[in-house]
Amino acid sequence: MNATQLFEEIKKKKSFLCVGLDTVLEQVPEHLLKYKDPVLEFNKQIIDATKDLCVAYKPNTAFYEARGIKGWQSLIDTWKYIPEDVFTIADAKRGDIGNTSAMYADAFFNLEKSEMSFDAVTVAPYMGKDSVGPFLQYKDKWVILLALTSNPSHEDFQTLEGSSGKLYEEVIRVSAQWADNDQLMYVVGATRGKEFEHIRKLAPDNFLLVPGVGAQGGSLAEVCEYGLNTQCGLLVNSSRGIIYASKGLDFAEKAREEALKLQKEMEHILKNKGLI
Amino acid sequence: MNATQLFEEIKKKKSFLCVGLDTVLEQVPEHLLKYKDPVLEFNKQIIDATKDLCVAYKPNTAFYEARGIKGWQSLIDTWKYIPEDVFTIADAKRGDIGNTSAMYADAFFNLEKSEMSFDAVTVAPYMGKDSVGPFLQYKDKWVILLALTSNPSHEDFQTLEGSSGKLYEEVIRVSAQWADNDQLMYVVGATRGKEFEHIRKLAPDNFLLVPGVGAQGGSLAEVCEYGLNTQCGLLVNSSRGIIYASKGLDFAEKAREEALKLQKEMEHILKNKGLI
Repeated sequence: MNATQLFEEIKKKKSFLCVGLDTVLEQVPEHLLKYKDPVLEFNKQIIDATKDLCVAYKPNTAFYEARGIKGWQSLIDTWKYIPEDVFTIADAKRGDIGNTSAMYADAFFNLEKSEMSFDAVTVAPYMGKDSVGPFLQYKDKWVILLALTSNPSHEDFQTLEGSSGKLYEEVIRVSAQWADNDQLMYVVGATRGKEFEHIRKLAPDNFLLVPGVGAQGGSLAEVCEYGLNTQCGLLVNSSRGIIYASKGLDFAEKAREEALKLQKEMEHILKNKGLI
Repeated sequence: MNATQLFEEIKKKKSFLCVGLDTVLEQVPEHLLKYKDPVLEFNKQIIDATKDLCVAYKPNTAFYEARGIKGWQSLIDTWKYIPEDVFTIADAKRGDIGNTSAMYADAFFNLEKSEMSFDAVTVAPYMGKDSVGPFLQYKDKWVILLALTSNPSHEDFQTLEGSSGKLYEEVIRVSAQWADNDQLMYVVGATRGKEFEHIRKLAPDNFLLVPGVGAQGGSLAEVCEYGLNTQCGLLVNSSRGIIYASKGLDFAEKAREEALKLQKEMEHILKNKGLI
C-alpha cells in the first residue's frame, strides 16, 4: 500500500486511526481464557469491532515475544486475521548492521520465510543508513523510523543540540535521502504536540505515525492542528485507551465505542481541513 | 553472572572470546539437513566444539526471527543447550517506552514466561533512560548498550558533534548514571580500534562487547592495546569467522581451529598484560 492508497483508505473510512494491539494475557477478559489462544481470540474480536473505524493495526512485537513461542504464534495468527485493506505495522523497533537488518526484514516482510508480511516495520535510527537499507529493499513496504518518541526520556538523546540542530531533526534530514514518501514514515509522539509544526517543515510530505494519544496524555486536536498535510499525513495510534476500555464481556463493544469517538473526532477534523 | 565472576571465567579459560551464533539455514552443511532442526544441530555441534575456548555465546535474534516460529524455537533450544557457566547474550538491539521494554525484558530474561533467560541483552539507546530501566530491574542481568557500532554508517548519527561531545560519548556519559559495572556494558565495534583509548577514559571499568573482528575487518591486537582494563573488560565477538570456517563435514572441527587461534592470541595478550 503506497501513500496515495493509504490516503484513499483514510478518505473512505473518514479516519486516520491506528489501533495498537498491545495485548497482554493478564489483561484479557476472563471469559476468553477458555480459548486455546486467548490473546488471539481477544485480538480477533477487537479487529472485528474496529476494522471499519481504523486504517491501520499496530501490534507491538514486545507484547508477543514476552510469551515466547506461544506469543510469536499469536502474532502470526493476528497478522493473518487482519483484513487485507487495513495497513499493518510491526512495531518492532529493530535495526542492526546490514546483513542482520536483512534478516529482520525477512522476519516482518517475507511471508514465505516467517509467515508474516506486514506493510511496515518501526526501525531505530541509531546505527544509520546501512541498518535501514535492507528494509527498503522491499519496494512495496515501509520503514517507520523513530524520530521524536512519546516517552519522557526522549530528552536524554533525541533533543541533544548538535551543530546542525537537534538529533531528531538530523535523523529526519539525513534519512529523507534514503527513501521517498512512499516508503518512509517517522514516529513522532503525540505528547510532542507543539513540535509538530516544526517537524512538518522538515518532513512536509511524509506520513507520521503518532503514538501517545490516550494513556500517554497526547492531544489529538493539537497533533492535527500542526501535523496534518494535504494527504492527511498522520496515522494516530491508540492502544490501551481502546483495547482495554472494559475488562468485561462487553470489552469489544466498549473498544468500538472508544474507537468510534476518535473516528468521529477525526472525521470532524478532516472535514474542517477540507480533506474529505 | 557479575563482572567479577565473568573475569574469573576469563582467567580460567584464558579467553575473552564470545562466539556469535548467527546461524542461517542456507549456510548449514548439507549433512545436517536430515535433522528435525538443522540450525539447532549446527549450533549444538559448534557449542560442543568451542565451549572450552570461549566465555560467551551471542545468538543474534534476527537470524532466528527470520525463520518465524521455527527460528524462535531454535533460539530457545540453543539457549537451553549452552552450558550454565558460559555467559549468554541475546543480541536483540531492543528498546521501547517503559511498559514495552518491560515486555522485552520478559522475552529474554524471564524463564517462566518465555523459556529463555539470557545473562544479557543488547539495547539501543535512542529512546533514553526509561527504555533501558526495565531491563535493569532484573538485578542479576545485564544491559549491553549500543555505543559505537562496527558498521560503516555508524557515522550517520553516533559521531555527530554536540555541545558536550559526540553522541556516542554522551550515550556513555549519561547511561553510566543508570547502572553500575555489574549490569551495564557497551557495544564498541572492533573496527573502531583507535577510539578504544578514548572510550576507556569515558568507561574505565565497564565491560565492552566488541563485534567486528574477522569478517568485518577489526584487529584484535589494536582493540586490546587500548581496550583492556584491570578486569580484562572485553568480550570480543567473532561470528562468521568461526561458525562458517568450513561448510563440510568438518565444520565443527574447523570452527574449533578458528576459535583456538583467537583463544591462543587472547591468552598471549592476557599474559603480556599480567592479567593471568
